[in-house]
Amino acid sequence: MRGGWWRALLAALLGVAAEALAGWLLRRRREGSAVREALFFPSRATCVEALLAEEGLAPPRPCACPLPHQESPLSRLLARLLSARSSLDLCVFAFSSPQLRRAVVLLHQRRVRVRVVTDADYMALKGSQIGILREVVLLFIGIQVRHDQETGYMHNKFVIIDKKVLITGSLNWTTQAIQNNRENVVITDDKVFVNIFLAEFEKIWEDYNPTNYTFFTN
Amino acid sequence: MRGGWWRALLAALLGVAAEALAGWLLRRRREGSAVREALFFPSRATCVEALLAEEGLAPPRPCACPLPHQESPLSRLLARLLSARSSLDLCVFAFSSPQLRRAVVLLHQRRVRVRVVTDADYMALKGSQIGILREVVLLFIGIQVRHDQETGYMHNKFVIIDKKVLITGSLNWTTQAIQNNRENVVITDDKVFVNIFLAEFEKIWEDYNPTNYTFFTN
Repeated sequence: MRGGWWRALLAALLGVAAEALAGWLLRRRREGSAVREALFFPSRATCVEALLAEEGLAPPRPCACPLPHQESPLSRLLARLLSARSSLDLCVFAFSSPQLRRAVVLLHQRRVRVRVVTDADYMALKGSQIGILREVVLLFIGIQVRHDQETGYMHNKFVIIDKKVLITGSLNWTTQAIQNNRENVVITDDKVFVNIFLAEFEKIWEDYNPTNYTFFTN
Repeated sequence: MRGGWWRALLAALLGVAAEALAGWLLRRRREGSAVREALFFPSRATCVEALLAEEGLAPPRPCACPLPHQESPLSRLLARLLSARSSLDLCVFAFSSPQLRRAVVLLHQRRVRVRVVTDADYMALKGSQIGILREVVLLFIGIQVRHDQETGYMHNKFVIIDKKVLITGSLNWTTQAIQNNRENVVITDDKVFVNIFLAEFEKIWEDYNPTNYTFFTN
């Protein structure tokens, strides 16, 4: 009888240990896969040509560009954006960076569903890349762009990749911001944040539906 | 003997169940205490006088202000800031909101250690609250403000409360941004993000140390 209890105790301890081990492994896996990154700017100018090369057109020999070929906050941001496989939902006040425009165009050409929301006032300024985005046509479909029609600014700067990863912060998509300003960007796959921002994107997307524009009525 | 094995199996199952229950309770507690909130603007104008009343000076009778007395993104942001007990590390491009300035002054008066980093160009504009902050003296110490001396902008908009909670996003601390713009703010106590931003704050704080200013040399 006493031997039975010892065995029971041993089995219980083994059970607890197994459960603890499983929990630890699960947590490790979860933490390992979680995306939590912050990028701070200004970013030193680095060559991003390899990242932005179209498939099949990447230069086979070393790049001739004089910029350093190393990682930078911009290259990390570009790599993250270019990881999109199904959708890119972008909400950005100012968009004049040619590199970021090339990334968005590449995604559109790869048949990622790109939606862009921007500010009407900034969109009209020289250097804005929004017009180029709209002209990029794939299977008769250009990149969809919507803009505000409000007195305030559409001042958000966030993007959601594949409805799974959120990038948000202070950074406008301009060369000035990337190379000269103190800026921050947070990247996370925390479902709570991703889902709240997805809902906000859909809300703004519908608020800015062109059928609601009143430019032409009076 | 067979009874012994049954008992062992039962004990093992109980052990597993107890461990699973403990894990579940722990996770629930962790999730319950975790701060993960997003605020979207524009914020409808609401009365925030009750939040901003100095201790002992809160009006005993209902507030006479005509604005609705309800929660808003601004009131939630103010409440979060006013929860600071030991430190407030603020890094903001544009600061012209009187309500947010009153919150920061209140914290200083409550002997919370307030440090402010801002942009030199915006600081000089009419409506900036930075000058008022510097004049608020408690025990001969005004609120400490440092600013950039760079060609780019100090365009960050983040704040760290008690070195434990990070608030970051697109929102400048201006009435225009709060009431008219589409903006977002993320609030989190995720240690990974809090610690990265704390390090960035300390770096900027030192970069902008007045001993490094070169205005007066030539």
